[in-house]
Amino acid sequence: MMKFEEKAVLPKGYRAAGIAAGLKASGKPDMAMLFSEVPAAVAGCFTTNQVQAATVRLDRERVEKYGVAHGVVVNSGQANACTGKRGIEDAKSMAREMGRCLGVAEETVLVGSTGRIGVPLRMDVVLPGIGKLAEALSADGGEEFARGIMTTDTRAKRFTATFTAGGKRCRLTGIAKGAGMIEPCMGTMLAFVATDAAVRDRRSLQAALLEAVKKSFNRVSVDGDRSTNDTVLLLANGAAGGEAIGPKDEGWAGFVEALEGVTLRLAKEMARDGEGASKMVTVRVTGARSAADADIAARSVANSLLVKTSWVGTFPNWGRVMDALGYSKAKVREDKVDVFYDGVQAVKGGVAAPVKAGTLERILGKKEFELECRLGLGKGEAVVYTCDCTEEYVVINKE
Amino acid sequence: MMKFEEKAVLPKGYRAAGIAAGLKASGKPDMAMLFSEVPAAVAGCFTTNQVQAATVRLDRERVEKYGVAHGVVVNSGQANACTGKRGIEDAKSMAREMGRCLGVAEETVLVGSTGRIGVPLRMDVVLPGIGKLAEALSADGGEEFARGIMTTDTRAKRFTATFTAGGKRCRLTGIAKGAGMIEPCMGTMLAFVATDAAVRDRRSLQAALLEAVKKSFNRVSVDGDRSTNDTVLLLANGAAGGEAIGPKDEGWAGFVEALEGVTLRLAKEMARDGEGASKMVTVRVTGARSAADADIAARSVANSLLVKTSWVGTFPNWGRVMDALGYSKAKVREDKVDVFYDGVQAVKGGVAAPVKAGTLERILGKKEFELECRLGLGKGEAVVYTCDCTEEYVVINKE
Repeated sequence: MMKFEEKAVLPKGYRAAGIAAGLKASGKPDMAMLFSEVPAAVAGCFTTNQVQAATVRLDRERVEKYGVAHGVVVNSGQANACTGKRGIEDAKSMAREMGRCLGVAEETVLVGSTGRIGVPLRMDVVLPGIGKLAEALSADGGEEFARGIMTTDTRAKRFTATFTAGGKRCRLTGIAKGAGMIEPCMGTMLAFVATDAAVRDRRSLQAALLEAVKKSFNRVSVDGDRSTNDTVLLLANGAAGGEAIGPKDEGWAGFVEALEGVTLRLAKEMARDGEGASKMVTVRVTGARSAADADIAARSVANSLLVKTSWVGTFPNWGRVMDALGYSKAKVREDKVDVFYDGVQAVKGGVAAPVKAGTLERILGKKEFELECRLGLGKGEAVVYTCDCTEEYVVINKE
Repeated sequence: MMKFEEKAVLPKGYRAAGIAAGLKASGKPDMAMLFSEVPAAVAGCFTTNQVQAATVRLDRERVEKYGVAHGVVVNSGQANACTGKRGIEDAKSMAREMGRCLGVAEETVLVGSTGRIGVPLRMDVVLPGIGKLAEALSADGGEEFARGIMTTDTRAKRFTATFTAGGKRCRLTGIAKGAGMIEPCMGTMLAFVATDAAVRDRRSLQAALLEAVKKSFNRVSVDGDRSTNDTVLLLANGAAGGEAIGPKDEGWAGFVEALEGVTLRLAKEMARDGEGASKMVTVRVTGARSAADADIAARSVANSLLVKTSWVGTFPNWGRVMDALGYSKAKVREDKVDVFYDGVQAVKGGVAAPVKAGTLERILGKKEFELECRLGLGKGEAVVYTCDCTEEYVVINKE
């Protein structure tokens, strides 16, 4: 059993920091920095939105072109999206300033932004903030980094795994922010994963990250919206001193388990901490005609506003689940559908199954439960992690 | 100019009624009946959801098979969906009982239900209710009918048009319920349209209804969900005494104008009266690569929870509009997008346009405004009528 800790214990060779630079009127932390002394191999996954933040454009280009990075500087409060050429210049300036402060090439610095769209970055605050971050960098700075990237998150999201690779004990730490605008293919979601394992080639690193993202962040849905800024970066700096590993090496399985374990835990935390959420729900669709159909059906249920609001209470309003399955583009045959809440059958063949009074209400009253929809048409399966939609969600998003 | 009145003045030969039969614990009206003495030609449009209420199955079959009807009986409170064979038997019993009370064949009676899914109809209440409705039928009963089909609607929705066809003054009256679960291809939405014009063949009647529905009810989105029960029925009984008309006759244009005018007005009322809505928004997309793309983009904006919650306030959060355009499956080029609120440009080429302070806030503070997104890629256009999403929506739907 691999060990996962719910804290940000930075792997060897990394330092991090988080500060309140002054971008947020509230005075809360709003900037963060992660830095590796030695250049790290880097992989990245970015939003599929056609409207993309300047930071996403810059990072994608650098990850593809150079494949190595020394670190990343992040601001929250302003998204640097829909900011045109000026936005690109601002993103480059952020990287240049971090490079200058730390004596590394600006091309090896990546950037991340999250917050309001359409407002130019306040560079008079951001640039001095970078200087302060560079001074504050510390091997113990993981927790500060996690707080520095939060927006409407109610708590920091970070996990650390320990594993053996290349003959050495290694760590892999993931730090993320989630909250609203979260859906497939990444929502305003930033995640930074750092390991001191050495990975032999960047293609394998990129492939491992893609696979991990597919199973974790892309299975989360908070409100069905996808953001312009979503970014996941994975740095592997080899500072643990082990031999470089690749997919055929002994240590690879441990590395992948650490990566997938950390990203899945971060993803579930995002669903749990969805804006205004009072409970997390795992929507599982089985028996679909295909895996693609299962995915479509699961997302239709997980994104239905009527389903999500019904979860606020404890009444098992499975009629809305049937409705959302029915209008999805997945093939559904009403008289073949079975629905279960934490294993208790509520619907059999499309109609109410006999359930002891109060049983379903008890399950829906829990902080977490699983809703399984068996379509009875094939072997396709999919899972989506989501949450209920409370009045609080509207309050958070209305201004 | 055709005259439209916001009331339900029944055309000649129709009688209607609405009563509180006892299905709703609140004691509010919950059953309604519309009846034509002479058989009327009938056309129908039904939900595209794969999960369909018993009433939808029965009506669709009867409209297609017989093409004539004497009327419809409707209940609210229970949807008669996901009720299996028993549901079909209950729907048939409703029609049989109305036929018996009024001395017409049960095959010429249609049914409608709206309310909670998955609960069998309380026939011990419904059947006596039908008897009471038959006795209460009145030529002045249009308003009672409109109230009898309401669920979470805050007000009755009905319009009457007057026009000349076949040499006679005719009326066309539409009565609908809307509120939640409203999206394309019909949301829990029931609409009944009756005219005393004579229409020559049912294919033309069906085609005219389809076209009207496409331009009206299918352009409304409240929460992006689509119901199992949506039904639009159009009856034409010829009781005005005019000659029967078809698409090539002089009076046809007037009939179509009345039909489309009434259904569009009903559709906009549904958006205005969406559950918890405080304002109605017309989302117009122009310059899309195709009409289909325009439709996809407009629905992406109109169904974005982040966009809809932002409309509760008055801050022009156009970044969320850009985001929703970007993640839609429609082709979007960020640097070509212009966005206007009631004609005032907020976005030019994907970035903020200069706007006098307070101008956009004033527009967003109105009860109704239009949001136009010009994509700059072609000639495709589409419009969707929608509303904001307030805390009240969650309160209504959470139990």
